[in-house]
Amino acid sequence: MSVSRFAGSEPRVGVWLIGARGSVATTVIAGCAAMTAGLHASTGMVTETPLFAGSGLPPLSSLVFGGHDTADCPLPKRAEALAAGGVLPHGLPSAITSELTAADREIAPGGPLPGDTREPADLIDTFAVDIRDFVRRHDLARAVVVNVASTEPTTTGSALSPSSLYAAAALRAGCPYVNFTPSTGLHHPSLAPLAAASGLPYAGRDGKTGQTLLRSVLGPMFTQRALTVRAWSGTNLLGGGDGAALADPAAAAAKNAGKERVLADTLGATPEGETHIDDVPALGDWKTAWDHITFDGFLGIRMTLQTTWQGCDSALAAPLILDLVRLTTRAHEAGLTGPLSDLGFYFKDPVGDGPSSLGEQYRALTGFAERLRDLQRTERPRDSQGEEAETR
Amino acid sequence: MSVSRFAGSEPRVGVWLIGARGSVATTVIAGCAAMTAGLHASTGMVTETPLFAGSGLPPLSSLVFGGHDTADCPLPKRAEALAAGGVLPHGLPSAITSELTAADREIAPGGPLPGDTREPADLIDTFAVDIRDFVRRHDLARAVVVNVASTEPTTTGSALSPSSLYAAAALRAGCPYVNFTPSTGLHHPSLAPLAAASGLPYAGRDGKTGQTLLRSVLGPMFTQRALTVRAWSGTNLLGGGDGAALADPAAAAAKNAGKERVLADTLGATPEGETHIDDVPALGDWKTAWDHITFDGFLGIRMTLQTTWQGCDSALAAPLILDLVRLTTRAHEAGLTGPLSDLGFYFKDPVGDGPSSLGEQYRALTGFAERLRDLQRTERPRDSQGEEAETR
Amino acid sequence: MSVSRFAGSEPRVGVWLIGARGSVATTVIAGCAAMTAGLHASTGMVTETPLFAGSGLPPLSSLVFGGHDTADCPLPKRAEALAAGGVLPHGLPSAITSELTAADREIAPGGPLPGDTREPADLIDTFAVDIRDFVRRHDLARAVVVNVASTEPTTTGSALSPSSLYAAAALRAGCPYVNFTPSTGLHHPSLAPLAAASGLPYAGRDGKTGQTLLRSVLGPMFTQRALTVRAWSGTNLLGGGDGAALADPAAAAAKNAGKERVLADTLGATPEGETHIDDVPALGDWKTAWDHITFDGFLGIRMTLQTTWQGCDSALAAPLILDLVRLTTRAHEAGLTGPLSDLGFYFKDPVGDGPSSLGEQYRALTGFAERLRDLQRTERPRDSQGEEAETR
Amino acid sequence: MSVSRFAGSEPRVGVWLIGARGSVATTVIAGCAAMTAGLHASTGMVTETPLFAGSGLPPLSSLVFGGHDTADCPLPKRAEALAAGGVLPHGLPSAITSELTAADREIAPGGPLPGDTREPADLIDTFAVDIRDFVRRHDLARAVVVNVASTEPTTTGSALSPSSLYAAAALRAGCPYVNFTPSTGLHHPSLAPLAAASGLPYAGRDGKTGQTLLRSVLGPMFTQRALTVRAWSGTNLLGGGDGAALADPAAAAAKNAGKERVLADTLGATPEGETHIDDVPALGDWKTAWDHITFDGFLGIRMTLQTTWQGCDSALAAPLILDLVRLTTRAHEAGLTGPLSDLGFYFKDPVGDGPSSLGEQYRALTGFAERLRDLQRTERPRDSQGEEAETR
Repeated sequence: MSVSRFAGSEPRVGVWLIGARGSVATTVIAGCAAMTAGLHASTGMVTETPLFAGSGLPPLSSLVFGGHDTADCPLPKRAEALAAGGVLPHGLPSAITSELTAADREIAPGGPLPGDTREPADLIDTFAVDIRDFVRRHDLARAVVVNVASTEPTTTGSALSPSSLYAAAALRAGCPYVNFTPSTGLHHPSLAPLAAASGLPYAGRDGKTGQTLLRSVLGPMFTQRALTVRAWSGTNLLGGGDGAALADPAAAAAKNAGKERVLADTLGATPEGETHIDDVPALGDWKTAWDHITFDGFLGIRMTLQTTWQGCDSALAAPLILDLVRLTTRAHEAGLTGPLSDLGFYFKDPVGDGPSSLGEQYRALTGFAERLRDLQRTERPRDSQGEEAETR
Repeated sequence: MSVSRFAGSEPRVGVWLIGARGSVATTVIAGCAAMTAGLHASTGMVTETPLFAGSGLPPLSSLVFGGHDTADCPLPKRAEALAAGGVLPHGLPSAITSELTAADREIAPGGPLPGDTREPADLIDTFAVDIRDFVRRHDLARAVVVNVASTEPTTTGSALSPSSLYAAAALRAGCPYVNFTPSTGLHHPSLAPLAAASGLPYAGRDGKTGQTLLRSVLGPMFTQRALTVRAWSGTNLLGGGDGAALADPAAAAAKNAGKERVLADTLGATPEGETHIDDVPALGDWKTAWDHITFDGFLGIRMTLQTTWQGCDSALAAPLILDLVRLTTRAHEAGLTGPLSDLGFYFKDPVGDGPSSLGEQYRALTGFAERLRDLQRTERPRDSQGEEAETR
Repeated sequence: MSVSRFAGSEPRVGVWLIGARGSVATTVIAGCAAMTAGLHASTGMVTETPLFAGSGLPPLSSLVFGGHDTADCPLPKRAEALAAGGVLPHGLPSAITSELTAADREIAPGGPLPGDTREPADLIDTFAVDIRDFVRRHDLARAVVVNVASTEPTTTGSALSPSSLYAAAALRAGCPYVNFTPSTGLHHPSLAPLAAASGLPYAGRDGKTGQTLLRSVLGPMFTQRALTVRAWSGTNLLGGGDGAALADPAAAAAKNAGKERVLADTLGATPEGETHIDDVPALGDWKTAWDHITFDGFLGIRMTLQTTWQGCDSALAAPLILDLVRLTTRAHEAGLTGPLSDLGFYFKDPVGDGPSSLGEQYRALTGFAERLRDLQRTERPRDSQGEEAETR
Repeated sequence: MSVSRFAGSEPRVGVWLIGARGSVATTVIAGCAAMTAGLHASTGMVTETPLFAGSGLPPLSSLVFGGHDTADCPLPKRAEALAAGGVLPHGLPSAITSELTAADREIAPGGPLPGDTREPADLIDTFAVDIRDFVRRHDLARAVVVNVASTEPTTTGSALSPSSLYAAAALRAGCPYVNFTPSTGLHHPSLAPLAAASGLPYAGRDGKTGQTLLRSVLGPMFTQRALTVRAWSGTNLLGGGDGAALADPAAAAAKNAGKERVLADTLGATPEGETHIDDVPALGDWKTAWDHITFDGFLGIRMTLQTTWQGCDSALAAPLILDLVRLTTRAHEAGLTGPLSDLGFYFKDPVGDGPSSLGEQYRALTGFAERLRDLQRTERPRDSQGEEAETR
């Protein structure tokens, strides 16, 4: 896999990250810089595989990063902490300090923090202005807004949660929107008509990085083999900010809803068993997920499968986010609108209708790549300059 | 899932098992009887799912069992031992004694045993006569020969191993052939022209029951997500006859070749790591398979997946074998010939060309079901009686 | 190991089980009958090892069973259910029906059930009368009361919970008392002076059967090697009555307190991490316990140990209960009084002072065996008949 | 735990490492420097726990390192590679470059390399001269020779293998000897009389770091609970030099002999099952060890325990080696001679007679500490200066 390194005359594309100083965002920004500089291969990025050759995706070198966050820790310092925790390769942060510093300068204050008395409408305005200003200052062809902030507790009231304020700001600023978390975002009832009217493409919800990724291939395996799953239990141990955020039962409930939906969808029934998320600070940004599956085989003979997944969520999420940035901005460019249901491959709880087995989701993604390729062929004769730059 | 219970005027179909007194064969025969009698659901049988509705498969109640074996232990006694070991439900053997006894009467002596001086050609003749005699005595519409005997050591010479003698006898007797083991069977060079000339359909090789089943969904997952697998190590612990047979390094080599082929095919490269098969008599017919997978994530960050599969191979194999019996005899009836490459779903090392990811193999199987359904529609107008019996 | 099979002129000893129709009690009664009849070896019974030779323990054949329960299901039927679930060997229940039926006749109604308006003092009276009546009818030399009922929720009030009512009845009836559960039992403040005044020996609390047994050897290993445990997380999956009872968070809290005490005691500090108990009915009486331990090695390098324990709690508990019955009644006979702190080997939260590492607890038990042997030598010259019977 | 940091007027002690440029030796030298400089706590060092207070052990700051090796890679470079692989903390190598460089200067060429025609007697002479020269140049009170080289294949002939040549050189140079590997070392028949005549203390064989450490606490647990282990299977995955060396079946046989001895000794019988050691270069210096244990519980009910240990062998070995250096040189100083059987805590296959359960081995070590303390009290009145320095 080769990483497209030079933008040439390629138009530049903005990536506006909600939670821009978190582990995931820092890994996204550092990883893009590392690949653009030729320091690392594009492991984990599906859009760098031959599947997407000729689909007209923006090169990584054309991406410009900014975002909102309520935290203060500068990106270079955050990156050093991630390297110490094994999330980023040692030595990487110092090699790309200038890129991190540049992105850090583009991070505007998020909100609302406790005590902030601004009205929701004012916050949406402010956020939208921040995004538009970013696009204008960098002369960007377009920008996508991606939510990678900590999971919000599920709420029942009608008020807009912060994730929905940011989603509304994205619409206001005319940007495609990706929700990589289980937070509400665009899923708030009051935002649905705005999303529909905006003519913007959007994608989500809740990135499928580890335990649920596994479940989306193991669930179909049992179903295809006509083996009856009786119980599916899981325990996730993780530290870092995510562990602390998910120690809140309401936030964990939001997260687990997606995990269990994948099981129900691929198995055709909800098996017995619970899924726990424990905050274990000693594990830092690394996650261990244990699943225990009890199933009936022939004549009801009971059998068991256990899986133990030890991964780093930020490192699993980051390449998927870069994929989604490229796919969503290309969709925007190509005039696609509404829920991008072909991107279910990336999510626990995909927008639109689509299959829930990873294999079928991969086929849908393959179809999406072909569609983009076809569009590329028809649209680019008018724009041969870009075409050449892209395939150079 | 409903089990088709009554054969009515349906023609009867023979199932000739090589290794007819082994754990797998006994589970096949007992399970078919249990389902036909309505004692157990059809868990694990893909041909009983809606996928195959209307495909004209022979009902389970139409199957008649026989076979070759060198062992003496009668099937009812073997079934009691399997129930004691948790492979069959307690109480089942006594409920179906008459079916087991009937099948046991149809088991002819296998060979060659040490000291047997008959020439290969004589053995093939004898075996073919046994099969033809079985078909004639029971007035069977057709019969399929299925190899479920212990894995043979890989051999390098040109002589026909026992599994190939039986395969040649199947051709001679005009029967479709299924090789559920990694033994040579029809894959011997001297049998290829005979197989081609026979006009018979055949399937194989090496049933995909546990660890390799898992590998055929996990391998594609890594590939689709562009995660680089660095090492894939495995250990299988099993007792029973299979454990002892595979303690022979040459037999284990045959078995492992299939396991590793699945990895190489789905990953696009052979990862580091070995696969062990240990004979652990204390485990009886139960198998524990541990896999340890090391992979590179984003920026080369190393992650790990471990799986522990605890299953009963005979109980995993039996429903697949009943599926294959139905599919292969239906293919024979429908005039299909040669390698049935659409049945790769069932095998580690499928005949013909086909995908190696389970999801894609399931799609091929779906296509096969549709093809049979189409054939059913065109062929049955001439045979409306059978059609009605089948769909009743 | 040989099971002492014939009581000869040995005095008979009563075993009064609280929860006498539960899985544990049924396994205790069935197992004792099976060993006495020579049907099974004494696997899991420490008092049948050479350690206790000559300690004057009552033979298994001298034990007579009875108890209290609020449930109705007769023991022979309960035993059949346990055999179907793999807790008892198939065929055992029918081989010992008469012993199960005899014990079942000795089960008196427990309480209080909802709606029961009797005062605590009345209940204690009734229970004590039941026990005394049992002792008198069978002409027992003595009887021990053992609590094997489902775990009670932890309570904060001053009222006596059922387990404490039964414990008070044991004192009233002059019987040694063993609490194999985490329920309050004798640990209620109002019972302490009665226990002290009674001059009876007692033991408890909360049998150490699986996950905690492991923790009591792994915790000391880390400490002895000066490795710093940072986090210890655990998940228990179990069905059966126990799973349902422990799905009550208050009951689980009682259970987990013991588990975590073992860690704190053997590690010298409480590590991060939670312990979950999930009700998974599909698992029946079988339990799977997964532990994940993160520790610091040399220079702070982080390492991991995971354990997966798959056992049957009733089968793990039963031999320990038979051990405790023999040890406690022998202690009573020998005139020992108060908390038997040398029996910490058997418990998560032992009475009295004692070590918490299994190895040291085994040494304490060894010392206890020696003490009994010494007592045997001094007391038995007056009773040589019994001595001979015992060592025959 | 506090690390004794300054040597004051304390006599200096030499540590002569066979395999001085390997992962283990590098970790030993780097770790000693890190603790002496106050950069890291003494995690993993038993001799820094209160158990050894007042036992007169040499402080870490008094240790001077040298050794033999056939490899050329300088220690500072080796240490950088270990830090990149997560064996040493990042940043440590640069902080202690001078100590690493100093030790590297004291590494003499090992042998014999292929083509070396020197006689064994000459090699022993040369090695002994190297050691004596090291002692003299640094004015050391004494030095201990420790074998931490790669495991040799087991040999059957009478010739001395390299490990035995080095062991003979240690005797010749008048140095206590520790064999941390399964190689022959002092165990060669022709060396036994020399060892006995030397009056030197020695310890070994084969450090107990991971899987076997676990086995030495789990084995006794099963035995103490009278649970019958039926099968114990294990797979070790490791890369680094150790993985490659143990890919040689003869070397693996040497290693596994120790592992299986621990099982046989603690269980009282050899269970079914094999132990594999696989070379998996992708794992580097990290090891994953999976154990699967099948045991009989009450009434023969079959249960299972699985353990997965993920550790870094060098980091597990290094603190034990520093412990052994201090214990052995203190034993030498105190006039102890012959096999130090009280150090079985550290070894898979301990010299002399001693228990095989870790708990009992810890008690023996406790007794050894007391003995040293007693000796310290009686010997030091003549040497009060040293006593004060030691306890300062």
